[in-house]
Order: sequence, then structure tokens, then C-alpha cells
Amino acid sequence: MENFQFYTPTEIFFGKGTENQVGEIIQSYGYHKVMIHFGGGSVRKSGLLDRVEHALQEHDIAYILFGGVQPNPTLSLAKQGMELCRKEGVELILAVGGGSVLDSAKCIADGVGNPDIDPWQFFLKKEVPKKALPVGAILTLSASGSEMSASCVITNEDGGFKRGFNSKTHRPLFSILNPELTYTVSKFQTGCGTVDIMMHTLERYFTKSKQVDLTDRLAEGLLKSVIEAGRIADREPENYEARATLMWAGSLSHNDLTGAGRQVFMTVHQMEHELSGMYPQIAHGAGLSALFCSWARYVCPYAVERFAQYAVRVWNCEMNFENPMQTAQAGIAATEQYFASLGMPVGLKELGITDEKFEEMAEKCTFFGQRTLPDYIELGKEEIVAIYQMAYEAGDKTGERR
Amino acid sequence: MENFQFYTPTEIFFGKGTENQVGEIIQSYGYHKVMIHFGGGSVRKSGLLDRVEHALQEHDIAYILFGGVQPNPTLSLAKQGMELCRKEGVELILAVGGGSVLDSAKCIADGVGNPDIDPWQFFLKKEVPKKALPVGAILTLSASGSEMSASCVITNEDGGFKRGFNSKTHRPLFSILNPELTYTVSKFQTGCGTVDIMMHTLERYFTKSKQVDLTDRLAEGLLKSVIEAGRIADREPENYEARATLMWAGSLSHNDLTGAGRQVFMTVHQMEHELSGMYPQIAHGAGLSALFCSWARYVCPYAVERFAQYAVRVWNCEMNFENPMQTAQAGIAATEQYFASLGMPVGLKELGITDEKFEEMAEKCTFFGQRTLPDYIELGKEEIVAIYQMAYEAGDKTGERR
Repeated sequence: MENFQFYTPTEIFFGKGTENQVGEIIQSYGYHKVMIHFGGGSVRKSGLLDRVEHALQEHDIAYILFGGVQPNPTLSLAKQGMELCRKEGVELILAVGGGSVLDSAKCIADGVGNPDIDPWQFFLKKEVPKKALPVGAILTLSASGSEMSASCVITNEDGGFKRGFNSKTHRPLFSILNPELTYTVSKFQTGCGTVDIMMHTLERYFTKSKQVDLTDRLAEGLLKSVIEAGRIADREPENYEARATLMWAGSLSHNDLTGAGRQVFMTVHQMEHELSGMYPQIAHGAGLSALFCSWARYVCPYAVERFAQYAVRVWNCEMNFENPMQTAQAGIAATEQYFASLGMPVGLKELGITDEKFEEMAEKCTFFGQRTLPDYIELGKEEIVAIYQMAYEAGDKTGERR
Repeated sequence: MENFQFYTPTEIFFGKGTENQVGEIIQSYGYHKVMIHFGGGSVRKSGLLDRVEHALQEHDIAYILFGGVQPNPTLSLAKQGMELCRKEGVELILAVGGGSVLDSAKCIADGVGNPDIDPWQFFLKKEVPKKALPVGAILTLSASGSEMSASCVITNEDGGFKRGFNSKTHRPLFSILNPELTYTVSKFQTGCGTVDIMMHTLERYFTKSKQVDLTDRLAEGLLKSVIEAGRIADREPENYEARATLMWAGSLSHNDLTGAGRQVFMTVHQMEHELSGMYPQIAHGAGLSALFCSWARYVCPYAVERFAQYAVRVWNCEMNFENPMQTAQAGIAATEQYFASLGMPVGLKELGITDEKFEEMAEKCTFFGQRTLPDYIELGKEEIVAIYQMAYEAGDKTGERR
């Protein structure tokens, strides 16, 4: 086990009806002026926004509304939010939505806290935010884990760069998690969320670090639960227990619990950021799903034992002691079949793209040759292109699933 | 899954040498005057206290020393600590030791924060601490989980009452966890710690709540890791990985992760508090070990499926589908054999006590008839006496293991 720090200060209020406590919660923290940040019309149509406004009014908390967040949230919208917060004297940003709204809120919070720094510098890792406005969340989508994580991913339209960085300032003050609010999430978005949750744990699971049994077993247990809950939520969107499992697992998958004491690569995330940075219509979870198994097959020869452990413990594959590589491959195939069973793409053609931009995406991913991605082997531009190409050849050749 | 709140704000610094960061850490929080709270001579002899003092001096942090905490920490010592903190203007209590030192520090912190309230009123649940001094920890014993938990258990010598209560104020600000500091923990205390860690998860695992698969699987994974690490640490006290697993599992076992979304009884803990309240020479872990399997056998008929799941998933017992009770009992027997293999008592005779006080202990446990303990069946005085009596008849009849 390697040395690590672990910091999850976010107060969680989990369960049915918890969004109605939001006024009381914000009051208990002593804040009086809030910006409600959200996406499009769905929080209005569902009546959630009304309930939130009502809960704030009941506790004499003043608020302004700032909507318009799109998937792959943009720097330009966040900059508008910063200006609004400064002008209105906002004390806390309440994100009502999924990971995109949360990340947009975090970016705004950093910007307001550090008015003298161009916020894109944080994403380029040239500056560090020293303080930030507090962020609270009412989650409507189980996927990103942003409600408990240190991460924040933003797209800079100027160049189509999608970049993320981790900061203590990104841990929300509180997150309200009511699984019922995810009943209306579409089959496709539920599949994307299930993949994203699994990937946050899988990218930590596939590590070079040795002697990581405790974290391994927590990760394996979480994955088994998510796989089952994802199957059920796909068929029964209003199954509370399945939605609850996905929601809590989403938070635990990205709050560092399943990565404690180990080196973490996050390769597939890095490669997917270039993909959905280049093609903003691609949902993050779908991009991850289309890439994971090709990445896994590419690096598997360098980590056969670990992939075999994954196959046996998560997918109940029989261990082939004479030929562990067969077991390892069986685990990858099981993952692929599972993703496909949720209607998720397992190859890039299914996303409706061509192979024209792979070189450019790989260049951006390596910061134009300034870095390689650490993994079981170092991944430079050539290897990254090879994985994109493998993913292009993989999956449903007809492209019909998309 | 039932509604729950989850709040683990404690910042964790885990790994080799981390105790040397303590000056830097306290400085980063902006505190200048610290009380170092500790037990007996072992932290002096080991040189740890010197290193801590050096680290504080290096960062210009003033401190006073307040030692003398014994196992089953007392209210009277805590009251001395409160007075000292007030007199010296202490801003943060740094607990250097195990759960007893931490709980003593938490009790002092509550007392200083609420000078107008008799601190025992908190333990009687007649008052609630509104604020408290911050507590930081350098842990030297993997067991109680107090380094990340909301709990605090204190013995009031006036009547021999051992009582605990949970409070947000009890979550330490930070905890420094270096597994190397536990190398010198004796075989017996290592066994007690392993049992305590398992029990914090087991008492949450045996719940009436349904649909708790995610939390179940996290708990089962944690238990499997602890069982293996406890075996290794028993034979190889300086095995870093085993010590690291016990230490991190100890924190995760009592920070509510393994109890999220479920009703929790904590019956064995309640019964053990009366045991070691009455006989202060009994180590908490040994008391739990001596009681658990008798409690389990007493309530098992009312929760056969859950005990069978425990047997299959944690102990790899084969499921007997025709007779699940046999599987359930096999899991309890496996636990008993494991505890015994660590040199832990599995019956009360092994603790060198008689059966004279069982009635009195049961009366105290039910607050003299004012409450019953919720469990798979309600446990009143009669049932509690019966479990003590079963535990008295159980285990090694010769009393030789103690």
C-alpha cells in the first residue's frame, strides 16, 4: 500500500425527499445568498426547481437563477457565472443537476475565489486555486461522482480543449442525493452513467501498485453491486433500490475510496476527453464505453494477473491456471458484453465518427509531445493512436447501435 | 436502502513517516497552541513523542503535554484536561495514541466547547455539544476507529458506568495514520484490535434492513481483507502491508461506510460496555470476542438468511440450500475459530470472571428497565442475561487461554 491522503468532507444527505431539506441545510451553514445553477428545462418541467425555490424561500434564503449548462460544460458559460456571482454577492452556489452542472459550478466557485487569475490557468495546471465559494449539490444524475469528488472538467471552446484538474476546493460542502430524482433519466443516459461509475472504479483498479487487497476488495464489491443495479435500472427505471445503488456507488467511485493507497493511471478518461472534446455530441459515458475494452486488450499482456483477478472476482469467471491470459480476456469480454447489453457502444464506429482525427486527438492527449501517459507501459502518441484504431475496428461494425 | 446522512470530514494522512508532517499540517490549519494528549510511557519510550515535539517546534507551534490516559478512559481525567485547556488557551488537542486517548481528547474538546454544561449530560443524552475544540490524531493502535468516527466512549468512575454518544463534534479534524507505529503492539492487543475492527463492521452488517447489497459487499470485502491481515499481523508483527490493512480498515469500519443506508443495532458493543465497565481490566476487544458468538447463536434463528450470507460470502462456506441454518451456524463457528486462533477469548470464563454480576450488568444495559435493545428480537433484561450466561458456558472451559 502506498502513502496516500484521503479527504471527503462533503456532507451527504441521502434518500427519499431529501431535496426538500435544502433550505434548512443551507441555513444551518449560515449562508443567505445563493445562486441556483442548472442546465436546461428538465429541472423546471419536473417541478424540482419549484421545490428547491420553495425550500429556500421557507428559510429566507435569497437566490438568483443561472441556467443553461450543456453536457461538456464550457468555460465561457462559467465566466458569465463568475461575473454574476460577483455582481450579486452570492455566498454559495447550489448546483441542481448532474456532473456537468456540478463541474460548471466548481469552475465558477474557483473563479470567484481567485479574481486575479485567468481560470483556464488552473486547468493548464499553471496556477492553483487558493480559495473558492462553497458549492452544494442536488444531484439528478448518477454518473460523474462530482458530488463528492475533487475533480472538475471543463471544455474551452477556444481550441476544443477538454481539461480537468483536481483541487480541495472542488469537494462540495454538501450533496443531496435522492435516487427518485433519477427515475426519469433515459435508458441511454442511465447506461452512460453506469459505465462512468464503473470506469471511475476500474481506472483505479487497474494499477501497478502491489499489496492493495483492501482497496481491491472494496472496488470489486462496488463493481458487482453496480453491474446488478445497472441491469435492473435499464429494465425498471423506477426501481428505487437500483437507482439508490447507482447513486451511492457513483459518489464512492470517485471520492478516492476505491483508489486509496495506489498509483492511478486514468488513461481511458484522458483518451475520452480528447474524443468528446473533438466531438462534443459524444456523451462521456458512451465515449468511455467505446474505448475501455480496446485499451484493456492493448495493455492486458503487461498485467495478465490483474486482469485475471478482475475476471474471477468481479465476473465470476473460472480461473484458468494453465493459461491465465484466457481468464484475463474473458473478463474483458464479459465487460464488453455487459456494456453492449446496456445499449452502450463498444467501438468508435458506433459513435458515428471516422478515423480522421486520431492523430490530432493523440497529439492533444500528449500535450503535443510534452508528456506520455503512464500506464502498464508508457503510452505515447503512437500507442494512443493504436488504441483509438483498435477501438475503431471493435464493436458493432454496422454502426446500428448508436 | 434507508435514508442516511454520511459525514466524514477528517483529513487522512496515511503511510510511512507521516507523523513527521504534523507540524506542517497543524500550521496549515492556522493553529498555534496545542495540547498533546497521550497515555503512558510507551510513546515516550518509542521516541514518538520526541518526534512529535520536534515537528511542532520546527513550525513554531506552542504545546503543553497532558498524559496519563488509561484503557477505558475516565471522566475525571478528562475534566482535568478541560481545566488545563482553558487555563492554557489551547486551540487544538493532538491525541497521540489509540482509541482511549482519542476518546479522552474528544471528551475534553466537548467540555471546553461547552463550559456551562456538565459533560456527563452528553453521555446521558440529555444535552448536545454545540461546539468543541478541534482534535487531531496520531494513531498508534488499529482498533477503535475513533480516528474517523463520531463516537466517544468514557467511563464515569462514579457508579462504574461506561457510556458513549455520537456527535459531529467528534469527527477529528485530521488523523495521521502510520502503520509502522503499530509494529510494537503486542500479539494480544493486535488480536483485540482485529476483533474490534471486525465487530464495528459486523454490528452494522447484521441488520434488519433489506436491499442493502452495496453496503453489504463493501463490508464483506473489508472483512475478508481484515481476516487475512489479522492472521499475518499475528505471526509477523512488522509486516507493513498487514498493519496497513488493519489500520485503514479500522478507520473505514467505524466511519459509517459499512453502515450506510441501514438500521444498526450495536448490541454486542452495548453488552460489552457493561462488561468492561464492571471489570475495567477487560480489554474492549477481548470482551467483544467473548460475547459475539453467543449473541450470534442467540439471534441467528431470527435471521438465518443473513447469517448464511455472511458464512458464504465472508468465510467461503458452501451454501446448504436444504438446511440454511447449518450454513448460518458454520459462519458463526468459523468466526469463533478465527478469534480463538488469534488468542482471543470466545467465552466469559476465559476472562476470569464469575457469573455473579450478570443481572446487575443487564439492568445497567437496559437503563434499569427504561429501554430494551432493538435487535432481530427485542432484548430486555431477561434476554441479555441469557446471552451473558450462554457466553459464560461457551469457549474454553478451563479458562487457560486468558
